[in-house]
Amino acid sequence: MKGGLPKSIFIESDQCQVILGVDGGTTSTVCVCLPLLPFSDIHNLPDPLPILGRVFAGCSNFNSIGDVAREKLEKVIAEALFDAGVKQSAVQAVCLGLSGVNHSKDQEKVSGWLRNTFPSHVKLYIQNDAVAALASGTMGKLHGCVLIAGTGSISYGFTEDGREARVAGAGPVLGDWGSGYGIAAQALIAVMRDHDGRGPQTMLSSCILQSLGLSSLDELIGWTYADPSWARIAALVPVVVSCAEDGDQIADEILHNAIQELALSVKAVVQRLHLAGEDGKGSFPVVMVGGVLGANKNWNIGNEVTNSILKTYAGACVIRPKVEPAVGAALYALNFLMKETVANGHS
Amino acid sequence: MKGGLPKSIFIESDQCQVILGVDGGTTSTVCVCLPLLPFSDIHNLPDPLPILGRVFAGCSNFNSIGDVAREKLEKVIAEALFDAGVKQSAVQAVCLGLSGVNHSKDQEKVSGWLRNTFPSHVKLYIQNDAVAALASGTMGKLHGCVLIAGTGSISYGFTEDGREARVAGAGPVLGDWGSGYGIAAQALIAVMRDHDGRGPQTMLSSCILQSLGLSSLDELIGWTYADPSWARIAALVPVVVSCAEDGDQIADEILHNAIQELALSVKAVVQRLHLAGEDGKGSFPVVMVGGVLGANKNWNIGNEVTNSILKTYAGACVIRPKVEPAVGAALYALNFLMKETVANGHS
Repeated sequence: MKGGLPKSIFIESDQCQVILGVDGGTTSTVCVCLPLLPFSDIHNLPDPLPILGRVFAGCSNFNSIGDVAREKLEKVIAEALFDAGVKQSAVQAVCLGLSGVNHSKDQEKVSGWLRNTFPSHVKLYIQNDAVAALASGTMGKLHGCVLIAGTGSISYGFTEDGREARVAGAGPVLGDWGSGYGIAAQALIAVMRDHDGRGPQTMLSSCILQSLGLSSLDELIGWTYADPSWARIAALVPVVVSCAEDGDQIADEILHNAIQELALSVKAVVQRLHLAGEDGKGSFPVVMVGGVLGANKNWNIGNEVTNSILKTYAGACVIRPKVEPAVGAALYALNFLMKETVANGHS
Repeated sequence: MKGGLPKSIFIESDQCQVILGVDGGTTSTVCVCLPLLPFSDIHNLPDPLPILGRVFAGCSNFNSIGDVAREKLEKVIAEALFDAGVKQSAVQAVCLGLSGVNHSKDQEKVSGWLRNTFPSHVKLYIQNDAVAALASGTMGKLHGCVLIAGTGSISYGFTEDGREARVAGAGPVLGDWGSGYGIAAQALIAVMRDHDGRGPQTMLSSCILQSLGLSSLDELIGWTYADPSWARIAALVPVVVSCAEDGDQIADEILHNAIQELALSVKAVVQRLHLAGEDGKGSFPVVMVGGVLGANKNWNIGNEVTNSILKTYAGACVIRPKVEPAVGAALYALNFLMKETVANGHS
């Protein structure tokens, strides 16, 4: 790419121009550096995409770590440019998909941080990390619905004319029942109920104790409250899937309920935004990401969620992204940069 | 009482002999001092009971505050004796019903603390606080089932031959769904689902925001996670009851589910201990305590739980205690002191 790009509307000097994509979460942050792709290529992206630089950092959620997030973001951006071997002046646009960004005031805060780093002609797009996940499936286009089901779960949707809707994603206390935490917590509850006689027997009782190296229910109660981390509880999902695969009815019910919850969260987005059109038959993308939706032997939660969505909306195009959310963020920046350039009469 | 008690098998000197009852919880601790009642009176207790001293302190749960609990307990006991105007040497027995006491090692720990305070002839009974609550309804007898539904919920049962069973009581993550926290959390979830389109409309949405002085769902999410206290969430129960009274179907369903959960926890205890006998028709006490079971205008959760229990076990004698758990603990001590004296041939 460094040899020059024919038909590019952006590259006017010999220097390679780049865009940056950041996927910033509570656990980790990834920043990628992509070359500015030529106008003709944006509708026909090269496969694989040319990634000039990619670096990894820890938490960058300012709700968790406060203004330290600013240093983290500046550092991860500088390192990605170093990794790509390009100067900061080569940057034309940056898209940051950050967990914790929910309102315009959040966007203004992060924008204020980065305005000192980049000159005013550099485009800054600051969005929730769900936007980066959506863009990783739509190759940068802000249209459709993304379902993220990891430790937590959220559905986020956008229309082509700029409306948006968010469903679930408010953490375990507030009913993200299809999330990894939700599934695992239901399994722990089933173990309690098996033990104390309120519920039926389940394989989960012995399998969960065994997987945690514990020998009694008392120890399990102690383990549950020893650490408030949701991810620690959510890590029990594979045990639930394994019990369901082995025919345990309770584990099976828990997973079926999670599937209904996840599909419901997508359907609520589609309904609110009329993504399927007035007749409910229109086509729209549904991007699905997150560990809960991954493949297993006999039990594939993602496929079951897909089936449930398709029963209601036959026009849903379910996409499992081939690129990571940070690349999605970079493609989002590329896509919007393109739109703005076209709107400004450069085409 | 200080004038001497006819027929007493214990009072042999002129000094008034006393028993102490302690109800020690995570929020507060109460210690009461009762005179040693005469043998004939234990089956026909005076009403009202003569309370010689009563004092109040903060948390005494050693899981919360560690070994500081020892000082707290020693202090509350000393203050209760001072309040009663009797010397420490007058104490014949102490029963402590403490939250956090779940195993024999917990009993040994607390026993070790108090053995320096009282000479070896003083009887020490160290139990879970649910035992004090049960005894407050059975006037000291350790038989039947107690249902406690406050911020948390638990059912605890005992047979006359010393077997016991515990159901629920493992906190909100582990499915205490009938508790105050459980009811309020379901209401918050219903508000989320109303707002984002996953669930039906409910009065809870406006009523909960109004009761907390908040103006948006975002503020409610922030409020939910701002403080990990379960009691703070549970304090929303009156709003749920009020919405149910005003005809809100969602609030009504939440309360009905809670009733089924609370009744189920009692039934599980009864079944495991065969409290109703082989034919399920035997008589046994069910003591019900805690704010959730209290009376309201049209919606009385306690009465509905009672009806559900009676449908399954017609022999259940539901008791709403007239004395507080600390007095229950003192009566427990009195009852056991009596039994041991009889067993030792003093009768």
